[in-house]
Amino acid sequence: MDRKPPLCTLCGSRPSIYHRRYSGERLCARCFIKTLRERVERTIARFKMFEYNSRIAVAVSGGKDSLNLLHLLHEIEEKFPKAELIAISIDEGIEGYRDEALRFASEACRRLGVEHHITSFKELYGFTLDEIAERHIGEVTTCTYCGVLRRRALNTAAREVEADRLATAHNLDDMAQTALLNLLRGDLRRMRLMHPAGFSLEGFVRRVKPYCEVPERESTLLAYIRGLGFQTKPCPYAEEAMRSDIRRFLNYMEARRPGTKFIVYRTALRIIESLGAVEESVGGVCKLCGEPTTGEICRVCQLLGELEKR
Amino acid sequence: MDRKPPLCTLCGSRPSIYHRRYSGERLCARCFIKTLRERVERTIARFKMFEYNSRIAVAVSGGKDSLNLLHLLHEIEEKFPKAELIAISIDEGIEGYRDEALRFASEACRRLGVEHHITSFKELYGFTLDEIAERHIGEVTTCTYCGVLRRRALNTAAREVEADRLATAHNLDDMAQTALLNLLRGDLRRMRLMHPAGFSLEGFVRRVKPYCEVPERESTLLAYIRGLGFQTKPCPYAEEAMRSDIRRFLNYMEARRPGTKFIVYRTALRIIESLGAVEESVGGVCKLCGEPTTGEICRVCQLLGELEKR
Repeated sequence: MDRKPPLCTLCGSRPSIYHRRYSGERLCARCFIKTLRERVERTIARFKMFEYNSRIAVAVSGGKDSLNLLHLLHEIEEKFPKAELIAISIDEGIEGYRDEALRFASEACRRLGVEHHITSFKELYGFTLDEIAERHIGEVTTCTYCGVLRRRALNTAAREVEADRLATAHNLDDMAQTALLNLLRGDLRRMRLMHPAGFSLEGFVRRVKPYCEVPERESTLLAYIRGLGFQTKPCPYAEEAMRSDIRRFLNYMEARRPGTKFIVYRTALRIIESLGAVEESVGGVCKLCGEPTTGEICRVCQLLGELEKR
Repeated sequence: MDRKPPLCTLCGSRPSIYHRRYSGERLCARCFIKTLRERVERTIARFKMFEYNSRIAVAVSGGKDSLNLLHLLHEIEEKFPKAELIAISIDEGIEGYRDEALRFASEACRRLGVEHHITSFKELYGFTLDEIAERHIGEVTTCTYCGVLRRRALNTAAREVEADRLATAHNLDDMAQTALLNLLRGDLRRMRLMHPAGFSLEGFVRRVKPYCEVPERESTLLAYIRGLGFQTKPCPYAEEAMRSDIRRFLNYMEARRPGTKFIVYRTALRIIESLGAVEESVGGVCKLCGEPTTGEICRVCQLLGELEKR
């Protein structure tokens, strides 16, 4: 006796390949992709992320999330002939890891006919992340260096290609984890920074997160269905134990109560919105590099200064 | 070789019996009790919980938290001769469980010379919780019944003894769990209700939580040091799987990063305060019982109505 899978809830004709527990839907591959594309479109519309003629820099790391986002935006933007997509990648300089990811990124851009810019830590800061990891001692972790420097590098690259938006591929799991992480750290300022609509700050290209309602699990499935080549290796420096603990907890809660990640993400948005706007007065510019900062010397220059002392 | 325990960080003279990881202190029994009493006093002062002449109903279940709170308030209120303490207990009617707890409650009140009032579900609602558990079928759990009915019963009892405050013994763990629980449920209205200062609503005795900064673990230790008899049996109806999951997660995070529960509690307070006041317009009174409610018929009458139908 062979049991056929149930038909797709949406088209009613093709066999389903995925059971979306939080909605009850069973979806065929084609409808599955369609629902995710529509979800990203709705996210863009709800948060007014783009203008009809936006020049959008997409941060493409070479992982599944950013490659999926690049493909979805490429499809969505076909309806907007005045809009432009440019992929930007940051080469932190992590041997055997980022170089592989960059190959996936370049290949995807080439096939889609999307311009691809690569900016490296080495040229921007004088050090690769591998060199930083060897050099730095003390409290600050390699991940903190990478986070701060990559954030700045993405902004620099987006400005260089004259983009007016910077789209990053944070997924639903990232959002829910960040919300919980910042609750457990008591960091409401950072919780505010996760807002998918981003902020307009002088000197910064506005960051938007059109992928923020796509669960990690569906992102992986999407990449497999499309046959995308993407990096699966974890970063050799990956640590951040606290986020791993929170990821595990949220996955457990989601398995027991499908929809939990959506609830956490949406509740965090309501909290953020009630907290009011991020202090948009960045204050001034860094005395050393001229980039916007809240203090006298920006975090990037502080961290690089620590390295120079060694 | 016998190793002596390090001396108490506070008095510097007696041997320590407890290492408070989140503060780094090592405390002797006497200083340990003193710090907790002072903490409760600070909580009362910070949230302006009492007036110098408040008539305070303390909800005493017979568990460690409420017995500790009763003792601490009794000590603190000695400085305020115009203030009064009355213990109130709710007998839900849970055979072999609440009857035992009530004996601990009565014994403590007798020793302290505190008036003790017992109000039962049976006399208020016509059913014991055991009868409700047998009778009710459907979605609503026995715990939901108990929560709603006990909340009302506490208010009724506090009014009966003409109290102007109702002090409950929610501890730090309860607070942090409630914050997280409501984030995972997306229930910001309930998150607001956890505020330790309570609310002034027509028809309600203002509820305050002077014990909300005492961690569960220290509450247990306090009861043992004082040699209090208290109930250790869990409630036979106890379930609420979601809170258990969250308790386990928070205990794990606290063990890895001492102070996590405090951070979650304090961050939740900041969130609650930014959300603004609870809708203080309760609307009207219940058509059936005349108690204040937001709808036409209060939750108590709805639940009791369900029972009558059986």
